[in-house]
Amino acid sequence: MQNCIFCKISAHEVVSDIVAEDADVIVFKDIHPKAETHWLIVPKKHIHSVSAVESSDWPLVASVIKKAADVAKEKGLAGYKLVFNVGREGGQMVDHLHLHLLAGGKVELP
Amino acid sequence: MQNCIFCKISAHEVVSDIVAEDADVIVFKDIHPKAETHWLIVPKKHIHSVSAVESSDWPLVASVIKKAADVAKEKGLAGYKLVFNVGREGGQMVDHLHLHLLAGGKVELP
Repeated sequence: MQNCIFCKISAHEVVSDIVAEDADVIVFKDIHPKAETHWLIVPKKHIHSVSAVESSDWPLVASVIKKAADVAKEKGLAGYKLVFNVGREGGQMVDHLHLHLLAGGKVELP
Repeated sequence: MQNCIFCKISAHEVVSDIVAEDADVIVFKDIHPKAETHWLIVPKKHIHSVSAVESSDWPLVASVIKKAADVAKEKGLAGYKLVFNVGREGGQMVDHLHLHLLAGGKVELP
């Protein structure tokens, strides 16, 4: 989607600090970290929000969570929090579905 | 699973303040709320954690998130946060996968 920063990051049109990537999902570091480790796990396909997932896209949402768990294991994280902010009143700042992974140090709400 | 409080709640062997329920997922109020609205969305099948999901159970994890979004919409929540705590160091207190939904008032990390 035009003018979507996470679409641009997914397409490598905007540089990010990439942690992992496959055909469907990209993982990169949050530029305003709320914990020692703070990644964003993002489907490359533009989905607006958890509140606006089409039936056919739920497997992709599951892939986002699986990717978080897989990369956390690869990187040896002992424990972590996964957070979806939904809607402005839920703290969602970018209208492209994304999962926060937070671990280590003083963890704050994203 | 024997001695699992969330299995007992799912089987209605332990009373909870149920918000919604279907064949696979139950939604009930957290007894130690960290926000005005604080629900737990729990698959009835015992899955230990997000870090221990079998391949065949990822659709069920997607159903947990879909259920949260559907019930939030039904109840008219404007925005909310969804949180999985993974592992003790991630704040997971019950070893049966569960999703926190937090909305309204001063929201604290679960």
